[in-house]
Amino acid sequence: MLSRTTVIAASLSVSAGSANPSKSNYSRLLGLNNNLSYTASNPVIVSSNSNFASFAWNTSNNSKYTKSRMERFTTRASPQPLTNADELIDSVQTFIFDCDGVIWKGDKLIDGVPETLDLLRSKGKRLVFVTNNSTKSRKQYGKKFETLGLNVNEEEIFASSFAVAAYLKSINFPKDKKVYVIGEEGILKELELAGYQYLGGPEDGGKKIDLKPGFLMEHDENVGAVVVGFDRNFNYYKIQYGTLCIRENPGCLFIATNRDAVTHLTDAQEWAGGGSMVGAIRGSTQREPLVVGKPSTFMMDYLANEFGILKSQICMVGDRLDTDILFGQNGGCKTLLVLSGVTTLSVLQSPNNSIQPDFYTNKISDFLSLKATTV
Amino acid sequence: MLSRTTVIAASLSVSAGSANPSKSNYSRLLGLNNNLSYTASNPVIVSSNSNFASFAWNTSNNSKYTKSRMERFTTRASPQPLTNADELIDSVQTFIFDCDGVIWKGDKLIDGVPETLDLLRSKGKRLVFVTNNSTKSRKQYGKKFETLGLNVNEEEIFASSFAVAAYLKSINFPKDKKVYVIGEEGILKELELAGYQYLGGPEDGGKKIDLKPGFLMEHDENVGAVVVGFDRNFNYYKIQYGTLCIRENPGCLFIATNRDAVTHLTDAQEWAGGGSMVGAIRGSTQREPLVVGKPSTFMMDYLANEFGILKSQICMVGDRLDTDILFGQNGGCKTLLVLSGVTTLSVLQSPNNSIQPDFYTNKISDFLSLKATTV
Repeated sequence: MLSRTTVIAASLSVSAGSANPSKSNYSRLLGLNNNLSYTASNPVIVSSNSNFASFAWNTSNNSKYTKSRMERFTTRASPQPLTNADELIDSVQTFIFDCDGVIWKGDKLIDGVPETLDLLRSKGKRLVFVTNNSTKSRKQYGKKFETLGLNVNEEEIFASSFAVAAYLKSINFPKDKKVYVIGEEGILKELELAGYQYLGGPEDGGKKIDLKPGFLMEHDENVGAVVVGFDRNFNYYKIQYGTLCIRENPGCLFIATNRDAVTHLTDAQEWAGGGSMVGAIRGSTQREPLVVGKPSTFMMDYLANEFGILKSQICMVGDRLDTDILFGQNGGCKTLLVLSGVTTLSVLQSPNNSIQPDFYTNKISDFLSLKATTV
Repeated sequence: MLSRTTVIAASLSVSAGSANPSKSNYSRLLGLNNNLSYTASNPVIVSSNSNFASFAWNTSNNSKYTKSRMERFTTRASPQPLTNADELIDSVQTFIFDCDGVIWKGDKLIDGVPETLDLLRSKGKRLVFVTNNSTKSRKQYGKKFETLGLNVNEEEIFASSFAVAAYLKSINFPKDKKVYVIGEEGILKELELAGYQYLGGPEDGGKKIDLKPGFLMEHDENVGAVVVGFDRNFNYYKIQYGTLCIRENPGCLFIATNRDAVTHLTDAQEWAGGGSMVGAIRGSTQREPLVVGKPSTFMMDYLANEFGILKSQICMVGDRLDTDILFGQNGGCKTLLVLSGVTTLSVLQSPNNSIQPDFYTNKISDFLSLKATTV
């Protein structure tokens, strides 16, 4: 069984997947690089709160992301079945919900969700919906909620496509630099909304390399960040273009929306996720990505800073232990596992599982029934 | 500076690239899993000599690959410029040459190579040419040697495409099982020659997934190994097919020809190598591959066993520290670095470099001149 510390280390966005972390990655793991500053041509890591290593672009003004990381190292007891929903609801100000397996399954709403969200809103709780899926923008996700009959505001949705744009803003990524995108439309739409120049994306999906002796692929020297998300039209052209930018453009960032092994294209089987595209670029650049999606805490840090929320006042609700619950724990939040998605009770209670949420329950509408029995 | 032990650990084929090696990978690093046997549905690792973890398929008869690993943990002195070629030549029986940067550069032969090979042959030395490139078969490589005016026999060539077939033979991979190939023609040709059934390869290069609700990709349950090599026509179809086989077919192997970050499609720039395709499948399966190319010592182990060569009687000649020289050292061979490829003298002598060959020289034809001066 892994120790708690091991699990935390394995979840760090910058080091995940590395057998041979560079000295600086080790320093990041140990939290040794607080408050350094750097220039674009020679980036230096600015350690942020929790475990998201934030990079500053020509600025050292990153203090809003620089806090203590000690809260993560608390020991948690075994998970308890949720018996008193009111007590949990009253103890927090904000609920962060993972979507697939919590709000919906594929294209079907999970029972009792609208009423549960109504209850929480009536109690003045802030609701936030977080997903690692980067193929859609906030706006496109808003439409999905609407189609399912849910009244959710665009500002309440945090997809990893939005997280990319929010991250670039948080580091003052220069507007005259460009972003090369390996991924689908959602990332492009969010970059456009945030006013960033981009290239790549679906447009490079059909491109081939026409090899002949002495041939080299030209690349734009103004690309300052390569963003990698799930991409059904992934190809060698994109691998080589992104690799060239990361290897040859000084200070070029390598940002991943997530490293999920699995994504849910259809419910009929598990589909290879964004972790495969990120793994490819890691394999050719030998660089570790900055991950903006779960379990990296960037989205939570952003929320906390943007809305002035204390993380201890947040409850993270999810169906996956190694992304959702770890994401909540990494951020120092309360955590609730729902069994309406991929995790079964026997997996949760297995001696091989070292990720223990504070509470677990069958589905979020248990908030209603558990409330009823305790009134 | 990394310690010698760290460098060795980072080079292990099965664990390279893993931040979070499974318990069994750690055990392999520590050499704890010697001589286990297993069945196809529940594979168990059979540790081999040096660092190649060999898998047995329905057989525990792998003793010819089971030897001591202690020879790797010797300390080496700083590299010496080669001053007496005859002494080195006389001290070994076999020379293993890397090709690109040693024999040729792109499509150009390096000065003095034919005469040097003639000299070594005249002294009764066995010559072997090893390359991580899997896009060509032995036969196709033989033609390249011929075009360059070199008289090299097919049996003297060890490309990683051949290593895949040789590896499958070494574990008695059942002939009724199939191999799914992510890679180019060389692998298919070698599998065919060895009598294995395969699918995938270039044929899947143009395939798209036509998504609709409830869609699932069917895969062949008889695939017992997924082989991943460099593939210019890499796509999401191949990622998903390979991932399904590895995840869902009991005991299915994940074999990589190599994990090179860079390959040499043209000399005009560095091209993303087989490490990107392997990284993608690692990202979606969360499994580590078995690597048959350098720096894993499978090819050397095979040579030693096939021809009855003592490894201390081999000199590995290469232009790369972290593949060629490490490959030689991992195998317990003498090592000679030539500066005719990617490694410069200043990189070799940098305090950051911890991989020290026994000797170094400018190019292999120094064997001629250094011989002349000492006669």
